[in-house]
Amino acid sequence: MATHRFHAADDAALNALYEDIADKDLQPLWELSGLLTPTPNVRAVPHRWLGKELRELGERAGELVPVDRGGDRRVLSLSNPGLGGAPYATATLWGAVQYLGPGETAPAHRHTPAALRFVLDGEGVWTAVDGDPLHMSAGDLILTPSWTWHEHHNPGDLPMTWFDALDLPLVEALDAVFFEPGDGRAAPSANAGLSASERRFGGGPGLLPGGTSAPAPAHSPLLRYRWADTDRALTGRLGEPGSEAARTGHAHVRFADPTSGRDVMPTMRCEMHRYLPGHTAPAERRTGSALIAVFRGAGAVELDGVVESLAPGDLIAVPSWTSVRIRADEPLQLFSVSDAPVLEALGLYRTEAGAG
Amino acid sequence: MATHRFHAADDAALNALYEDIADKDLQPLWELSGLLTPTPNVRAVPHRWLGKELRELGERAGELVPVDRGGDRRVLSLSNPGLGGAPYATATLWGAVQYLGPGETAPAHRHTPAALRFVLDGEGVWTAVDGDPLHMSAGDLILTPSWTWHEHHNPGDLPMTWFDALDLPLVEALDAVFFEPGDGRAAPSANAGLSASERRFGGGPGLLPGGTSAPAPAHSPLLRYRWADTDRALTGRLGEPGSEAARTGHAHVRFADPTSGRDVMPTMRCEMHRYLPGHTAPAERRTGSALIAVFRGAGAVELDGVVESLAPGDLIAVPSWTSVRIRADEPLQLFSVSDAPVLEALGLYRTEAGAG
Amino acid sequence: MATHRFHAADDAALNALYEDIADKDLQPLWELSGLLTPTPNVRAVPHRWLGKELRELGERAGELVPVDRGGDRRVLSLSNPGLGGAPYATATLWGAVQYLGPGETAPAHRHTPAALRFVLDGEGVWTAVDGDPLHMSAGDLILTPSWTWHEHHNPGDLPMTWFDALDLPLVEALDAVFFEPGDGRAAPSANAGLSASERRFGGGPGLLPGGTSAPAPAHSPLLRYRWADTDRALTGRLGEPGSEAARTGHAHVRFADPTSGRDVMPTMRCEMHRYLPGHTAPAERRTGSALIAVFRGAGAVELDGVVESLAPGDLIAVPSWTSVRIRADEPLQLFSVSDAPVLEALGLYRTEAGAG
Amino acid sequence: MATHRFHAADDAALNALYEDIADKDLQPLWELSGLLTPTPNVRAVPHRWLGKELRELGERAGELVPVDRGGDRRVLSLSNPGLGGAPYATATLWGAVQYLGPGETAPAHRHTPAALRFVLDGEGVWTAVDGDPLHMSAGDLILTPSWTWHEHHNPGDLPMTWFDALDLPLVEALDAVFFEPGDGRAAPSANAGLSASERRFGGGPGLLPGGTSAPAPAHSPLLRYRWADTDRALTGRLGEPGSEAARTGHAHVRFADPTSGRDVMPTMRCEMHRYLPGHTAPAERRTGSALIAVFRGAGAVELDGVVESLAPGDLIAVPSWTSVRIRADEPLQLFSVSDAPVLEALGLYRTEAGAG
Repeated sequence: MATHRFHAADDAALNALYEDIADKDLQPLWELSGLLTPTPNVRAVPHRWLGKELRELGERAGELVPVDRGGDRRVLSLSNPGLGGAPYATATLWGAVQYLGPGETAPAHRHTPAALRFVLDGEGVWTAVDGDPLHMSAGDLILTPSWTWHEHHNPGDLPMTWFDALDLPLVEALDAVFFEPGDGRAAPSANAGLSASERRFGGGPGLLPGGTSAPAPAHSPLLRYRWADTDRALTGRLGEPGSEAARTGHAHVRFADPTSGRDVMPTMRCEMHRYLPGHTAPAERRTGSALIAVFRGAGAVELDGVVESLAPGDLIAVPSWTSVRIRADEPLQLFSVSDAPVLEALGLYRTEAGAG
Repeated sequence: MATHRFHAADDAALNALYEDIADKDLQPLWELSGLLTPTPNVRAVPHRWLGKELRELGERAGELVPVDRGGDRRVLSLSNPGLGGAPYATATLWGAVQYLGPGETAPAHRHTPAALRFVLDGEGVWTAVDGDPLHMSAGDLILTPSWTWHEHHNPGDLPMTWFDALDLPLVEALDAVFFEPGDGRAAPSANAGLSASERRFGGGPGLLPGGTSAPAPAHSPLLRYRWADTDRALTGRLGEPGSEAARTGHAHVRFADPTSGRDVMPTMRCEMHRYLPGHTAPAERRTGSALIAVFRGAGAVELDGVVESLAPGDLIAVPSWTSVRIRADEPLQLFSVSDAPVLEALGLYRTEAGAG
Repeated sequence: MATHRFHAADDAALNALYEDIADKDLQPLWELSGLLTPTPNVRAVPHRWLGKELRELGERAGELVPVDRGGDRRVLSLSNPGLGGAPYATATLWGAVQYLGPGETAPAHRHTPAALRFVLDGEGVWTAVDGDPLHMSAGDLILTPSWTWHEHHNPGDLPMTWFDALDLPLVEALDAVFFEPGDGRAAPSANAGLSASERRFGGGPGLLPGGTSAPAPAHSPLLRYRWADTDRALTGRLGEPGSEAARTGHAHVRFADPTSGRDVMPTMRCEMHRYLPGHTAPAERRTGSALIAVFRGAGAVELDGVVESLAPGDLIAVPSWTSVRIRADEPLQLFSVSDAPVLEALGLYRTEAGAG
Repeated sequence: MATHRFHAADDAALNALYEDIADKDLQPLWELSGLLTPTPNVRAVPHRWLGKELRELGERAGELVPVDRGGDRRVLSLSNPGLGGAPYATATLWGAVQYLGPGETAPAHRHTPAALRFVLDGEGVWTAVDGDPLHMSAGDLILTPSWTWHEHHNPGDLPMTWFDALDLPLVEALDAVFFEPGDGRAAPSANAGLSASERRFGGGPGLLPGGTSAPAPAHSPLLRYRWADTDRALTGRLGEPGSEAARTGHAHVRFADPTSGRDVMPTMRCEMHRYLPGHTAPAERRTGSALIAVFRGAGAVELDGVVESLAPGDLIAVPSWTSVRIRADEPLQLFSVSDAPVLEALGLYRTEAGAG
């Protein structure tokens, strides 16, 4: 009987009832407070991690810690100061930087938490997803969906660092974590140059493989979104006379499953934003949390009224119902990942013009 | 900086790195263990609350605690012994018994956590949902979906007790709890006898209001599922020669949105099960958690190998990945609510033939 | 070369071109007229067939024509006077009365055109659909979806007449008619009393069989909609204070697939309408055609301004874009079937307040 | 009373019944034959129109017929020899070549039949759809969906010919044709270079505009599919080691709505096929009809066993249930349009390994 025991000041009968209630693993609702708050009672706090520091710590870890020491990944995970020491960036999202040195390999495993990689800098690593080799280059988004085998290889001469995001805290809260290690054998060589995933689904906008249409998959079959495409899409939006993007100086694209238009994975929404100096996009807040990775540019973010500068490689945690406003000092390229699809699917998505 | 600080036994450079990592609100993945477990690491434990005790404590609370004392509801909430004193039945579900005395009223409020009521015994209370009065009678399922105004009235001479289930722990984990109190005025009289919801959507199987079809709503527009219908459906299944139900001695119906066939609410699946003595339904486990309320009959439940007897009014918490098997000593009627729609929507639903 | 040959009055070069165009199985668009009309150019005309005459002719056919003489069905099909002698009620719908005498059987066959039966009077016949016996009684709707085996048996002492509707003209226009005769053996006895279809899906509104949800089927798995349910649903709507039905004196229910809320079959929408004397439902027209069967009551229908009286058993063809208004002299019960799901699926559904 | 009158050889009572039946606009099913055939009874016949002749006749029409003479379009429509002189290529599809001379304009109008244009050769024309200017170039697919305003402009020095396909026969069979002429004013200059449609939805595979997701539209919001993308997609498929395309020497892409993965319009499926010499794709037939336009290459098509050679610009009508097999003498690029989405939506889609 671990439950809380309540006491009434001077009412013996009530105290006896409270004792019996606790003995039976029950609690009296009328003594509980803070259960149903007018707005969300969020423990995670807004926070920014500096890209400069993340890179430097990643490099030091690269020197001191072999990649196969625990977890088979050399990862520094964001630990939100509001979450009591848990290695989680927000209530639902894990964020991290992963560092892979020249010649290193992070061997295959799979788990039900879904993951994605956004390449902050460099190129040359390839990630095999269920055996299909995906090349990674700056600005690319790579998906390793729930329960897919994945492994990373760096055959080049330079280390590479990328941003990892997982839905691990959410999957853990749902008691649905499963994990399986691989057999230690590496996927076939990546010399192919272009993954089967890209060959089948990456030909162009609205071009799908012919043949009988299959049921919609649980995640996007396109596993790599190349920066060249993303860049062109944003440029196109900002250059369209009279468009909202051109008018506000803020363009964003949502990474979507080309076979359904839905988010790339059922638990995470990915977007790329470009803000021009002087843009007029307003502050906004919404239910659910997000992580932002600064790809390029300079500016600042205001989180519930507190301003933090932004530089390449910075990572920002945006907890639920936190007001966000962006300032661009030069064209600012932000990758964001959020749990919005979860909130939408469950009927819990809300937005509001934010404070600030 | 609340994050955990790791230490390496005798490696000064590594310890210095660990210090710097912790200083920057980071954690080294390779030192973390237990994050990705082969199967879910579930804190909640299987548990049964006795109906007899719940009724007795409800009655005592009815004598000692006025309904308007805190929360406007006289509710005893299930507090799972594995959850460290939180008033939650499982990781995602709140379960409780609610007691409303003769002449009492639980005034209107609304909240984003969705709720449902299953009437274990008695009749005569009515619940207004967004002003539409729904009569409550033994075996009825009443929905009060997310963000709908709801209030309970007991105009009769007898107290009434029902089972409450909410998705509160889930909505809290998503930082999406909103609450709003009502203005204190009661909904119009319930003399109408039949709710607008039932008049519009309760006419019969497959009969929907004519006219232009609206977009699918976030929850079922049918807010009351009458026991007479549920009972007849179960009887029909068991009496169908050669059907799976007749063959196994186990029939179950899923309460569905009549306009879409989907679950009644996006976060909770409701079912009614009838087991005949000697039924052959096997043990099973699945991701996500459930609560079971014994409506009528007698038997036992085996949870991960531990057997607990079942009598009317008993409530059972079934955490994720717990093996469940039912034994019926007489025809056993069980109401169940689970978070299965959440797991399914997020691609995390798994089942397995259970141990035992 | 069957194509039309155009001629230009006095332009030799143009005439030579026209000759060459026709020689090559082409036609010059600029000489074609009437292809793209401001509103639909509808060949079918509004028409009413009298129930009294249909019954009398059915009975005479029952005396003179054995049921197994051609087509295995004793059916009088509606032949719209505007369709040049085709046995079609409208451009997309086949309508008919079917007469089955005491002791007679219409043996099993199947075809891709979907069919439904609405029982105008009597009871005692049963229809087996893929072997599942469905009892037929006045006011019932029975579905025999595309490519399902179906047969009719009249074990009683009285003849029975019902209204048949098929999407045959549509399926023929799409060149998708397939047909297969049965093997001559009758389905098992219908003594069961309640079909498997009804036992599984007819338990009550929003009650579906438990267990893993299957993909949405191509048609409703509920194959019989009983008049008692339909009647109660209409009564409920008209008795709901303040409802649109009560306000206008016109209630209608749409027969839906209980697993999806969609129409019972992808090509036909079925509805039951009840009009009270003095109702205020306005005239309306829409794209696509409909058939109306008068179940009970008396009144009149105004079709593009022409008024026809209505009595039980009357059948009415409503071509596309025909304005319809109903008058009730006593409570008037109308069954209607239309191709609305086709028009909706193809983005061609339009409505307009009708003339009259 | 236009209906057919049947006569029985020597049965006076039956003849009297037949007279009365016909008098009442009815027909006796048992005398009708050919209504329900084992396989579709298709009137349209397989046919090939030669590209060389189409171009030559288009040019002669360009000299002799002004573009504004009737219908505002200089179009030669395919008239299937089996359809009794109707200007239709198949039972459901209109096919045509459209010729627009230098400096000519085809002014704006709109109609419920949906249209698409596939550019067989040349470039420089632009088509405005609801005011958005789409440039047209060889190999491009341009959509002008149902009820969208559209107009064509040729500001260049060379004539241009393209392939038109419409769902006109289908929409006519459904009595749903509506037409509205424009006001004669041309859309704004096309100097923009890139349409708003392409800027918003054409950025890359799986890249959608950010912001609140709208309900799925009735048609693709991407209105131009550029040949460069289509070509690259086909090349990628054929170059993928071990893929079905590489193995069979036949690749095809389906043009899809990037927001949903569905067909570009609810009534027409568009695909691009590339066959390499010696490919092994088998003969196949299916319900519903198709038109094929030869873009580039050389080979032959076998239609129900009859072989016709293929050269650029050739158009082929493939009626329902016609067996089709392709032979490539050099890499053969075929554009195809079919009514497959209609058959699928209505549950009438069937395929079979074809004869031959």
